[in-house]
Amino acid sequence: MHHASDILLTLFIVFIAAQIGGEIAQRLKLPGVVGEIAAGCVVGPSVLGWITPEQIASGTPLDVLAEIGVVLLLFAVGLETRLEDLKKVGKVAFLVGVLGVLVPFGMGGVWAHGNGFDWSRSLFIAAAFVATSAGITARVLQELGALQRTESKVILGAAVIDDILAMLLLGVVVSIQGGEGIDLMHLLAVLLGAVGFIAVIGVGGARVMRWNSSWLDTPRSPHSALAIVLALCLGLAYVSTLFGLAAIIGAFLAGMIASETRQQHALEKQTQPLLALLTPFFFVVTGSKIDLSQLASLEADIMLLVVTLIAIVSKLIGGFLGSLSLGTRSATVVGFGMVPRGEVGVVIASLGLSAGVFTPQIYAIIVAMSLLTAMVTPPVLAWTLRRTRANGEKVEAPELR
Amino acid sequence: MHHASDILLTLFIVFIAAQIGGEIAQRLKLPGVVGEIAAGCVVGPSVLGWITPEQIASGTPLDVLAEIGVVLLLFAVGLETRLEDLKKVGKVAFLVGVLGVLVPFGMGGVWAHGNGFDWSRSLFIAAAFVATSAGITARVLQELGALQRTESKVILGAAVIDDILAMLLLGVVVSIQGGEGIDLMHLLAVLLGAVGFIAVIGVGGARVMRWNSSWLDTPRSPHSALAIVLALCLGLAYVSTLFGLAAIIGAFLAGMIASETRQQHALEKQTQPLLALLTPFFFVVTGSKIDLSQLASLEADIMLLVVTLIAIVSKLIGGFLGSLSLGTRSATVVGFGMVPRGEVGVVIASLGLSAGVFTPQIYAIIVAMSLLTAMVTPPVLAWTLRRTRANGEKVEAPELR
Repeated sequence: MHHASDILLTLFIVFIAAQIGGEIAQRLKLPGVVGEIAAGCVVGPSVLGWITPEQIASGTPLDVLAEIGVVLLLFAVGLETRLEDLKKVGKVAFLVGVLGVLVPFGMGGVWAHGNGFDWSRSLFIAAAFVATSAGITARVLQELGALQRTESKVILGAAVIDDILAMLLLGVVVSIQGGEGIDLMHLLAVLLGAVGFIAVIGVGGARVMRWNSSWLDTPRSPHSALAIVLALCLGLAYVSTLFGLAAIIGAFLAGMIASETRQQHALEKQTQPLLALLTPFFFVVTGSKIDLSQLASLEADIMLLVVTLIAIVSKLIGGFLGSLSLGTRSATVVGFGMVPRGEVGVVIASLGLSAGVFTPQIYAIIVAMSLLTAMVTPPVLAWTLRRTRANGEKVEAPELR
Repeated sequence: MHHASDILLTLFIVFIAAQIGGEIAQRLKLPGVVGEIAAGCVVGPSVLGWITPEQIASGTPLDVLAEIGVVLLLFAVGLETRLEDLKKVGKVAFLVGVLGVLVPFGMGGVWAHGNGFDWSRSLFIAAAFVATSAGITARVLQELGALQRTESKVILGAAVIDDILAMLLLGVVVSIQGGEGIDLMHLLAVLLGAVGFIAVIGVGGARVMRWNSSWLDTPRSPHSALAIVLALCLGLAYVSTLFGLAAIIGAFLAGMIASETRQQHALEKQTQPLLALLTPFFFVVTGSKIDLSQLASLEADIMLLVVTLIAIVSKLIGGFLGSLSLGTRSATVVGFGMVPRGEVGVVIASLGLSAGVFTPQIYAIIVAMSLLTAMVTPPVLAWTLRRTRANGEKVEAPELR
């Protein structure tokens, strides 16, 4: 009868930590998400140990709740994104995506090689510098009510491009690592698959919904439309992993499709409580993965500082150059918006560790860098966004949580 | 990047199975919950095997999601329940709770003894006949918009009493089993702890909220009140397990406390999407635990039929006699409302199996009985409720899902 006791305590700790951390952050005029990540670090193994490393390992209930949380977050972001708006910024987003991958990959590789790794290992390490995690940025944009701004559309579009390129790059470096050489035909097939999936689902789905979404108006209950789009969200999140993309890409597409329906506004409202319950799990679990003990030497700290600076500057350059046509202020917003690496860098580092390419220290540093970029970005992004608010675009509910 | 692939597929299967099962059930004029349980049986190990036994074991992500689902369901039911209303039916609920435990315990014990078990084992088996699972009944009452009816208040109040008594009874039969004899002082302490917890939290919490809940009116966001009561829900769900009670009792109390606040109506609306996402996991997982292969002999089927009949009739008698003061029609509703055993019978049977008291066949039969009562109750309860609708009480949205 009482087997669920331990997990309930853990859920309570994670949830309440997020609330307290978020509240403190907001009183310090920081985005709530920073507080949630910091709270995760505090209750996690590194400080209080109320959450153990076993509890946040891959496939555990907390890990799955975190995944559901970020999937729902990107679904909600998709709900506020119209395909038409994304198309308008398509070219800029593409440039930002490509440069935002190439510059960090290049700078990361040079740094790793300069630190004594051979080129094939250096490229693997460089791959961990690449992939932007859209979750953090999306949450900040949402908190600031800035999802309708041009910069936000560029960032979200670029995040999709970024994910495709990061996936291809990971394929390449893993092949090089295995000494197999690069199978261009295979890579081309992977690229075509991913692009095809996004085009067919995103563009096709949105067109179908715009054409006719009255079948969602079931009279039976105001929540069956929600159930249908949530099923779509889970389904597309799964299918996008089959094409080698992150689950959140599929969730974003599902939201974008649902945004074309007549229920868009009701769905947006109904999704808010889901985010309130589940996204804290993503951010707290993200924070709890920071392993402070691996960074207890001066040498490690300096290296972490350098790596984090490279990660920030390289992404900033890529995003800035890619979106320069929007003006320097907007380009700065886009650049910072692309900085957070979040969980994707962590996963690549885990692959590198288990493949024997990364030393435990490099692993810890890459993980810490991913999380540091995730923690540094929100306040900077919030600041740059406020500074460029003069654009005349709608900015509502500046402190929405 | 793609480690989450498998679990996403499982989540999708569970969620879509619930939607399809619920839809079919409603077209057959059955409560949606019956379809969700049946869908769980179909996608579970017994039929399609899309969900494996390992995936629904205790502590797995699906199990935890199911637990969160039922916790939120009872929280939502609590939100629609005023302490004042429960007090009005206090005496009747107490009688229903006590008789609804004693009659099944007695009849179950006699049946087990008649089937060749010694008395100490028979009492353990009898304990598995006892505990009502409030989740199923609560969902049916909610689907039918009948939570405000007197019978519903009696059932919910009795479910709390029932849970306390079942917990004590389990303590007794486990002690007898171990040959330790019964420690009356210990049992008394357990009883006082549980009753004290419910009284202090339920009555005290509700009073505090009625006295002043303006501190929940934070201007920052319409969702921070929700976050606070969700934290309360998770916290009380955990604490109630410390007092030996089911987690759902604490969740129900949290909802009841929140129902006294000024935000009650907003909270009720915001909880609906949470239920839409998460309660399907509870009902599908419940259904997927039915192991049809253990019941593949005529002998087993006859025994299952007898056990299920005893379980239904004994609870019906207890609930009916306890609430006879409401009139025979309402007493019938209450009696059927107490019938479902759901997951609690399953947990007691698991304890009995691992303690070597239950044979695998008795285990399978008790589990199947628990789930059969859960499947049989909703349509019967819906039917009796509709038949007694003449009471003049408010019945809204008869097919709400």
